[in-house]
Parts: sequence; structure tokens; C-alpha cells
Amino acid sequence: MTSSSEPSSTRDSRYDILFEPVAIGPVTAKNRFYQVPHATGTGCAMPNTRAGIRAVKAEGGWAVVCTGYCSIHPTSDDRHYPFSSLWNDADVRAQAIMVDAVHAHGALAGVELWHGGGVVANKVTREAPLSPSGIGEPVWITHPVQPRTMDRSDIARLLSWQRDAAKRARSAGFDIVYVYAGMGYLPLQFLLSRYNKRTDSYGGTFENRARLLREMIEITREAVGGDCAVAVRLTAEENMGVRGFRGEVEGEALLDLIGDLPDLWDVKLGFSDDGVTSRFAEEAYHEPFIRYVKAKTGKPVVGVGRFTSPDTMVRQVREGILDLIGAARPSIADPFLPRKIEEGRIDEIRECIGCNVCVATYAEGVPIRCTQNPTMGEEWRRGWHPEKIPARGSDDSVLVVGSGPAGLECARALGQRGYRVTLAEAGRDLGGRVLRESRLPGLAAWSRVSAWRLGRLETMRHVEIYRESRLAADDVVEFGAARVVLATGARWMAGLPESPDGGEPEVTVEVMTPDDVMDGRTPSGAVLVLDLDPYYMGGVIAEKLARDGHRVSLATSAPVVSPWTSYTGEQHGIMVRLLECGIDVVTAHRLVAIDDRGAELASVYGGQTRNLACDTLIVVGARAPVDELERALAGRPDDVEAAGITDIRSIGDLHAPGAIVHAVASGHRYARELDVGDPVVRVEPGVGTYVTASN
Amino acid sequence: MTSSSEPSSTRDSRYDILFEPVAIGPVTAKNRFYQVPHATGTGCAMPNTRAGIRAVKAEGGWAVVCTGYCSIHPTSDDRHYPFSSLWNDADVRAQAIMVDAVHAHGALAGVELWHGGGVVANKVTREAPLSPSGIGEPVWITHPVQPRTMDRSDIARLLSWQRDAAKRARSAGFDIVYVYAGMGYLPLQFLLSRYNKRTDSYGGTFENRARLLREMIEITREAVGGDCAVAVRLTAEENMGVRGFRGEVEGEALLDLIGDLPDLWDVKLGFSDDGVTSRFAEEAYHEPFIRYVKAKTGKPVVGVGRFTSPDTMVRQVREGILDLIGAARPSIADPFLPRKIEEGRIDEIRECIGCNVCVATYAEGVPIRCTQNPTMGEEWRRGWHPEKIPARGSDDSVLVVGSGPAGLECARALGQRGYRVTLAEAGRDLGGRVLRESRLPGLAAWSRVSAWRLGRLETMRHVEIYRESRLAADDVVEFGAARVVLATGARWMAGLPESPDGGEPEVTVEVMTPDDVMDGRTPSGAVLVLDLDPYYMGGVIAEKLARDGHRVSLATSAPVVSPWTSYTGEQHGIMVRLLECGIDVVTAHRLVAIDDRGAELASVYGGQTRNLACDTLIVVGARAPVDELERALAGRPDDVEAAGITDIRSIGDLHAPGAIVHAVASGHRYARELDVGDPVVRVEPGVGTYVTASN
Repeated sequence: MTSSSEPSSTRDSRYDILFEPVAIGPVTAKNRFYQVPHATGTGCAMPNTRAGIRAVKAEGGWAVVCTGYCSIHPTSDDRHYPFSSLWNDADVRAQAIMVDAVHAHGALAGVELWHGGGVVANKVTREAPLSPSGIGEPVWITHPVQPRTMDRSDIARLLSWQRDAAKRARSAGFDIVYVYAGMGYLPLQFLLSRYNKRTDSYGGTFENRARLLREMIEITREAVGGDCAVAVRLTAEENMGVRGFRGEVEGEALLDLIGDLPDLWDVKLGFSDDGVTSRFAEEAYHEPFIRYVKAKTGKPVVGVGRFTSPDTMVRQVREGILDLIGAARPSIADPFLPRKIEEGRIDEIRECIGCNVCVATYAEGVPIRCTQNPTMGEEWRRGWHPEKIPARGSDDSVLVVGSGPAGLECARALGQRGYRVTLAEAGRDLGGRVLRESRLPGLAAWSRVSAWRLGRLETMRHVEIYRESRLAADDVVEFGAARVVLATGARWMAGLPESPDGGEPEVTVEVMTPDDVMDGRTPSGAVLVLDLDPYYMGGVIAEKLARDGHRVSLATSAPVVSPWTSYTGEQHGIMVRLLECGIDVVTAHRLVAIDDRGAELASVYGGQTRNLACDTLIVVGARAPVDELERALAGRPDDVEAAGITDIRSIGDLHAPGAIVHAVASGHRYARELDVGDPVVRVEPGVGTYVTASN
Repeated sequence: MTSSSEPSSTRDSRYDILFEPVAIGPVTAKNRFYQVPHATGTGCAMPNTRAGIRAVKAEGGWAVVCTGYCSIHPTSDDRHYPFSSLWNDADVRAQAIMVDAVHAHGALAGVELWHGGGVVANKVTREAPLSPSGIGEPVWITHPVQPRTMDRSDIARLLSWQRDAAKRARSAGFDIVYVYAGMGYLPLQFLLSRYNKRTDSYGGTFENRARLLREMIEITREAVGGDCAVAVRLTAEENMGVRGFRGEVEGEALLDLIGDLPDLWDVKLGFSDDGVTSRFAEEAYHEPFIRYVKAKTGKPVVGVGRFTSPDTMVRQVREGILDLIGAARPSIADPFLPRKIEEGRIDEIRECIGCNVCVATYAEGVPIRCTQNPTMGEEWRRGWHPEKIPARGSDDSVLVVGSGPAGLECARALGQRGYRVTLAEAGRDLGGRVLRESRLPGLAAWSRVSAWRLGRLETMRHVEIYRESRLAADDVVEFGAARVVLATGARWMAGLPESPDGGEPEVTVEVMTPDDVMDGRTPSGAVLVLDLDPYYMGGVIAEKLARDGHRVSLATSAPVVSPWTSYTGEQHGIMVRLLECGIDVVTAHRLVAIDDRGAELASVYGGQTRNLACDTLIVVGARAPVDELERALAGRPDDVEAAGITDIRSIGDLHAPGAIVHAVASGHRYARELDVGDPVVRVEPGVGTYVTASN
């Protein structure tokens, strides 16, 4: 293995404060970097994959590395989401793999013990969900079951489950053991009067409503003896008015009651606004909502805010907002973030772009992925490390055509391996679709995908970059690199879907695509965005044009706008924003025809039709690979062979149009597997082929 | 173990034809009962659970028992759905567990080899999806990735994957090996001109488009030698007009080309109408669409249609529609259906109610469940058998209060165990919510839940049933059964959700609940159904009132009506039906206020409000357990003890209001676990606690 760069300089003294140790009850964090609990889409069925994810963070300098939410009992079963658990000895063994891997790198291991109460449906264990007063929430896609009301013996059992799980956590070697009172889970439900209508000593007054949390903290401490710290994770502000948990009211009252009872407060927001994308929130956006906590406790406080700037981190500590810099997403995008600060390699930090693909993959029930960090989730399965990569396997030179996310990552990783690389870009600017899309409303942070890669490439003398170099087949043949990688991307198509009778709707107005809009073309008159894509582009294009002053409507045959963004947590916010921009949004309708009077749309449920003004139609549909060069080269096998080109491969959107996460992963994979023979792909023992080889 | 009833009589000769053997290539089905491939929500991670499900069907008399869809290669990865696979030797071992279990009962084992092509997203394996021409379908909730176009070498690889998987299937011991050309999967995509725009020998003419399927059949036969039959599963009619696969056009053309190439045709419909619920289709509804197949082939044909009537089955054979009676759902509801016909126990058949809870659980990514058969999916984990149950563990008598689905199933299973049971029902009719709901539009078949149980109870002399016997706590204490089971159900509540400011919307009109409607109360004037429930009730109540001649609107704060029915495959059809009934449907709005001018609704996205006429408000919200008796008994512990009552337990909707599937399972579990000590709950080896104990 070769490292991309050994520590070349030392830490900026401005950041010394971030490397002070922090005592957390009986244990001590070696610095202030704290990977808060976050899901990884693995669970106990994939203990090695899970351990691989956590281990690189410990290696990367985080002082504390936590599990995701870890169920204490089968009455808290969140399937199909892959959650963690400590139900029995088998789970202890599975968790110990992660703990040992974290300890091996000198970090503390934390476990977020969790009971979901009435928020989970127990689809696999088939237990009735538990709750303070039998009140469920209309969580629309969950399961048609209501929770039952816990009686006093249920509360006693819950406490015993927490105690037993805490003991198992200590057996597994964890250093910090949580009580989780966030996100609508059980202890928070007891705190909230909208769920807790009890008339016994666990309901009514705020002190009564806080009794369960207090007892859970106490029994956890009792269980772990003096061996582990006891942390509380709290939704410190729900941002939903009088029905919710308000920092200034319930939050301060809680801290007045038990502010010094746990060894650590880990504070966050609620379901809808805890992990907001960069499209909707800036770095450190939690700050105003959690600021009250430190004033009310003598114990250390950790919180999050998608921190990637060390200056912002320092300010959090200096201003007394946080003691420990918590991170979920930034630790996924760059597991080595602390070490890079420590070693004075600030410009090497791979900053989270806030796209929430990590959240989405978990929500889809599969192992975590990251747009910025293609090795995330592949540490154990494929042996991919976020910083290290095997040295080159040959002296072949490589020509990479196209500087979008796939081409950039491919050239960068090949360069890291030591290959001589030429990167050719047709245009003047590097970055391809990432560059173009980052100029659309709300997507500015996405430019970090190209910025980080360009920064790395600039340090590599064996990588040459040519701009304004549109290559034809002749150019590629003449160039004579041994390996050719095509990363020419894809373009949005203007074609409309076939109608039920097999024809295309007749269109008599100007038709444009998102690429036209990104190219700067201006639509005329009333604009109709016909959104046939499940992800973000339709809404973003509509927002941009509305902000530019156009009269805009958006129609989709899906039941909601940008449906896949329900996984990234953005769907509701996108709809709100479109309406705020004055966009007329029509869902569940398909285009029938457009003429001088406008567009005619038919309900996908039959019957109703609607008309919308339309002088310009913008089709957000499928994308077509830009495959002219690929085809031309495929048509000249003899010339290719004569030129000494041994291999031509397509990557990224040219290979299969996808999201940016797919493009980066595709480019990385090519670079990883070049000259490697049969790549290693491990399978979790006993899990059949849940995770398995790809060849 | 005691069996519920040993063969008491012999087969009706009318049904002899169903027990004729059928040759399928080199193997022979011992009768005409064929469990077609269906998903079980298990996959290779749960090989024992899977084998347990299949084994009871073989034991129950099905001549052929198939796997669910079984991926041939990591480029066909359907996670988060739990699918089957034959990718490597570990999978062969996992599949062999099922094959051996099926063979042990004298049945043939079939495997549905499958490649999903462009329909799957390969979320875990991260391979680019494959397709004939790069055309995806707007499958809204799938994944933001488009398939790539297969070149000739991809086609060659695909064929080699099919060959290798077929060889593995033979190694695992399967008797019938499939090529799957249905549901938009890869071979069907090649057949369809809306996906296949190729200009090579695999596109263009129909013969060219059928080339891939032909070659897959041929290579499968070559791989299995003469050891296994080769079956083709085909979507024989898509019911979508000229853009789809039409039986009369593409279907007949295909059979003209390769009608006798496979050993068996397994015919079905498409994604949207293959497994329709009883709310939308009757038994044998596939018949007109698949009728053409047998005329075009000399090979046996199997098809489905939610067959539970042996007379209908006989007609399918006699009229030359089918040779083999295929079943997925009826074999889930009653794995012993064939044996019951064979043994002249027709009235013991537990008929599928067509609710598609089985489909929904798979779609949710968890092991299969069944409303009618609470043992489904629990065969291995809990050792539950659909027909056998341990003899009683004591001579205790049991009083069951309430004859809804939980009470009926509890009394029945306790009776089967040999307990003396008294079942007390407050009303005149037995069946509780099942009886009431089965009178609503489209839900008639649900009465089978109570009908089957009542039929079984009638045969049990040691079970006494009292109607019109509303019990108070005094009655229970005086009755003096050792065990008391409370199954008094739940009632819909009229309460409205709190508004954001913590208050309730002001309502000045008449308010009713679904129970009021089922009780026969008639609303006056314009009706607004406020649907706060994720499942079916809001839509069904609205439909009933519209059919009764009321002016009806329906409002929900969810983005679609009855959102959880997207899992049962009903959501789109429900919306179509509501509109057909003239109902004004308003989604994504919450109620603000109601006064003389009607209801005021606010968009959940902010800004917009709407007004609807409303003289009667019907709230379809949460349900409250009917717990008066439970509370009264809890308040009299001394009397209870003095009466010799050792245990009082609540089950079903009283315990936690859920769907009927939850109620039946709750009643069954009580009966199974009575006097058993610590119930057995097995954990799949190596899978951590994915499936685990509940205590």
C-alpha cells in the first residue's frame, strides 16, 4: 500500500484546541472529534462490513466512534431498516468485532442503545409496539398497527431490557453507553405531552414525564458500573411549536432536572430537520437550537452541524456551544478529517456535499454509500481504504477522456496509484455535470466533488490535464496510451414518453432539456417543466426558472414531485419551495398534447384532464450516453490494436447514466481494479450472498 | 403433536382429475397442484425459514413446490427486497436445504431462475443494470439510475450466467429449472418493442426479439442435461394495449415460434394485474387472458387465479385452460389445500381472502405473513405447523371474551389443542370486525376469516359458544375459568388530531366514525371523510357512502389516498375507483376548521387552503381499545384471585389495534404458547439477530 501523502506539515496552532482531550465520565476522548451514532445500513447481519466502516474512522483520528441505533429488545424492531442490536450473546460477539477494530486505532467505542417505542412496527419480531399512551403518529408509510399503552410492569421490563443491554455493551467492550431520547423514540415520547397522556407517576407534570429517562440513565449507570460513560442523546429542539419539544421550555426544564446525571449530552434536532441537505441548510445550522444546553450542564456536550471547516469547529468550542465536534456525514465523506487537520493537510479534506445519499441508502435498506467517498461501505467487502490504494500494477499509461465526476475520480485514483495519466476535457472548465449542476439553486456545495479531486490532481506531476481538447477517434488512436478510459457522460434527451396508443404526444412549442437550461438558453413565455425523473432535476430546473422570473408550472406523472428525494429527506421541502416560488405543481398527470392553447394533461387515474399554459416545454426525462467517441473507436478495432491500445473502457454516465454517486464509484472502481487480476470481494459468513462478488 | 382431524372420508370422485399425474419433460408431477414461484421475504440470508415455508406445502400435497425469483448473477440484485439467488456454491448449499425438505415429502422442487435486467437497481452489488436498449421505466420509487445497453458480449455473458446457474440448480437437486420472461424482467424486455430498439439480430422482427428467450431456453436445457425439466414463465398478456405484450399478437406469435421448446409454460399477467386483491378481482380472473396458450403448445400449462374452489380447478382442466392448477396465495393461506381435497375435507380448506398482506410483507422487505394462516413464515422459527399443534399442557379451562378474528382464532387453536374453551360474544353474530368489514364494498371475501374458524369450532364439542353474552367483570369472576383471554377489540375514535397550535380544529357539524357507518347510521347532507389512517378504511367508507347516494369528498394529509396499500398493489386502483364513484379527493391537506360554509383545509406544504362542503364529518383516525372489562378486572385483583383465575391476557386489537393479520396472529400465539414454558424461537445461524427471540 502507498499512502496518498504522508504528513507533509504540522498542525496549525489555531486548531490546537480541537486536539485537547475531553473527560467523559470514567473515560477520556483523546481529542474533540466525535463520530456520533449514525446508521450504516448493515446491522448485525453484516458485522464485518459494519466494523470496516467504523474502523477507518478510528484510524482517521476520531476520538470516539459510535454504532448506529442499537436495539435493546425485540419489541424495538425497525426492519426493513437494517438496525443494530444487542439482544443476546450472538449480538455481543458481532458488536465486539467493531469495538475491537475501533480500539485497535486508539479510539473509544460508543453504543447508542435504543428503544423505538411506538415509532417502530416490529415487522419481523411481530411484537406489539410500545408507547406511553397508545398514541401513534401518522407515519404514512410505516405499517397499519398502533402501539399499545405500557403499564407499570411494561415500564419495569423496559428498564430491565436497558440494564441487560447495557451489560452486554460492557461485555462487548464499549466505552460509552447511550440512552437515546431523540427522534420520537420511547424516552422522548414520555417527555412529550402529545404522546404522554398518562395519569400515573410517569405522566402529567414535566418531572413525571422525565421520570422514565431519569430511570433509564440510572439503571444504565448501575449496569455498567464505573467501566463506561453514560451518554444521553436528546432531540434538543423539535422546531414544531407548542406541540413539540422546545429547547427554551422543555429542554431547559429537563436540564434543570437531570443536567448533570449523565456523563455526556449528545444533542440533535428532530426527524424532519436533524440531517438536512445542503440544498436546505448551511454548516452549523443546529447552533441556535442547541446553544442553550451547555449553560445548563457541567457535563461535556457534543452536537452536529455537518462541520467540515476547522475554523467553524474551533468557534463552536471557543463560544461554548460544544465541547466535542460531532459528525455523522462529514465522517462518512472523509473518515480521515481529524488526522488531516492534525497533520496540517486542511486542503486534503474531502468535504461532505450534503446530498444525503448516505441517508437514502440506509432508508432504502442497503449498506451506506457516499457521493464524495466511494470507499464508504467497501472497506471490508472490497478492501477499499479511503486514503490508501495499491501501487500501480504496470507501467501502462492511461488516457481518461472527460472530466466529470467519473473521469476526475478515475484520473485521481489512478494518479494516486502512480500511473501516468492524461485527462482530456472537451471544454474549458473541469468538472462536467458536477460543475454545471452546482450552479443550479441549492446545489453549490456539490462543486466540492470536483474541487477536491482537482486539488488532489494538481499535486500529481504524473497526471497531465488538457482542457479544450475534444478528442475524436483519430486523436485517441494517435495518442497511443496503453489504456483508454471513456468518461464522456450523458445528455438529457428531449424525447417524450410514448403515449398509451404507442405514439408520442404532439408538441408544437419549443422543447428544451435541463442541459439547454444549464447551457444558458432562455425559454420564452410560459414554461412547463415535464418531470419524468425520480430525483431532483425537475424541481431544481423549475426553481431556477421561477427565480429567473419565468412563469413556471411543473407536471409529473408520479404521485409527488421528485419522489426519490423522500429517501434523502428532501421531498416535503422541495414541494414547499416550489410552491413558495409560485410554481404551479401538477402531480399524477401525464402530457397528452400541446398546442396554441397550452398543454393538455390527463390524470393517471383516468377521467380528469387539465390545461396549463405552455410556450416552452422543458422535458426532464431520460439521459442518453454521449457515446460518439465510444462508437467510433468500437468501429476501428484494427486501428486501436495497431496503436497499442490494449483496453478501452467506459465509465460513469456513459456506461450507465445515474446519480453523481454512481459516477464517482464507477471511476474509482476502474482505477482500483486496473492490473489487479481478480479483485477481492468478501462475503459475510453465514449470510449467503447478501453481499457478494460482482464477477 | 395432535392433528386437527385425521382423514375422515375419501375424495369426491368429481375431483379425481386433479390427482392425475402430469409429465413435465423428464419429471412427473404426482398430481395437478403446483405451487408456482412466489416471494417469501426470506432470501439466502434465511435459508431455514425459507425451507420451512416450502416444506409444509410439499407436506400438504402440492406436487410441485417452487422457489421465489432466484437471481442468476449479481447484475440482478433486487435489494432491499429479499430475493433468492444461485450465484455460487454457498447459495447451492442454502437452496439444497429447501430442495431436500420438499423432496422429503415426495414433491418436485422448481427454481425460478431470474435476471431482472433494467427493472432492478443493483443497490448492493453496485453493478450497472442491463437492458436491451438502455430504456428504463419510470418506476418511481426505485433508484436514480438508468440501465445500460447490452452489447453482444453482454448477451453472451448473460447466457453463460443462465447456464452456470442452471448447473448450480441441478447440483442443488432441483427438478424443474425456469427461464423467467415475465414482469418486465430481461427476456420479456427483449420481446417488447417499447424496450427493445436494437438493430442487431436480437431486435427488430418479433423473431429477433424472441431470440434471447429461445437461447436462454436452449442453454438451460443444455446445462441440466436430461435431469431437469425446463420451464418458461411468461407474462402472457400485459393488458396495456399496443405498447404491451398482447396474448393475441405477441403471445400467439411467440408460441408459434417456440411453443414446444420448453417442457412447461407457466403463464401469468404483468406487474400491475398479476396478483390482484379480492377487492378488485374474482377467482380465475386470469382465464380470458391466458386461454390462448394451451391451443398453441403440446406442453403442459400452469397458471394461477387465486383458486380455492376445487370445482373451479376441475373446470380449468376440463375446459383445456390449464393442465396444472397453479397457486401462490391459496398455497400460503392453506398449504394443505391439495390434501384436504384428496381426503374429502373440502370444508376444512382455509381459503385465501385475497388481501395481499403476503405481497405487502415481501414488499416491505420482511418475511411473508398471511391473514388467514398465522403459521406462515413461522414454520422453522417458532416451529408452528399449519395443521398440527401440541396437545394441551394442562386441564385448565379458558374463557375467551370476544369473537373477532383474535378471539375466534384463539378459541379455535385452543380447542385444537384440547382445552375446554368458552367463547363469549356480546352480540348476536360472531366474527367481530371481520364480519362488519366484510359487508363493506369489495371486502366480502374477508368473511372467510371468521367463516373458516366458525366451521372448525363447530366440530369441537369441548368449545362452547355463547352469543349475546356481554360479560361484565362480575360475570368473568363468577364464571371461574382458570384462564381468561380478553379479545374485546377496538373502536374507531371520533377525535381529531391536534392542530399545530395544540388545539383541536373546531367542528360544528355532525361527526361520525367508520363504526357508526358500519352500525348503519346514515350521514346527512354532504359528507367529508377525513382519512388519517394509512390503510384501506378511509377509501372503503367513502366508496360505500358514494354508492349509497351521498355526496362525498375525502381528504387526507398523506400525499396519496390509502398510502400503505401501495404495498398490497391496490393504491392506484383505489384512487381510480374513488374517482369513478364521483368522490372529490383532496390529498396532502389537513383540516383547519368546519363551519356553516363547509370545511376549510390547508395544504401540508403551506400557503394554499381549500374549502369543501361538509354537513357530516367522518373521521377515519385512530382506534381505541375497548378496554372497560380489562380495566374493571385489573381493578379487582383480589376477586380475580379468589375466583381461581390464574391469568388474564389481552389479545388482538385490545392489546394493540392493528390489521386483521395482527389480530389472528395474536390469538394464535396465545393459544400456541399456553402452558408451554419458554417457547422455542430459532435464529438463522450467522445472521445475528435478524430473526430472533421475542422474550
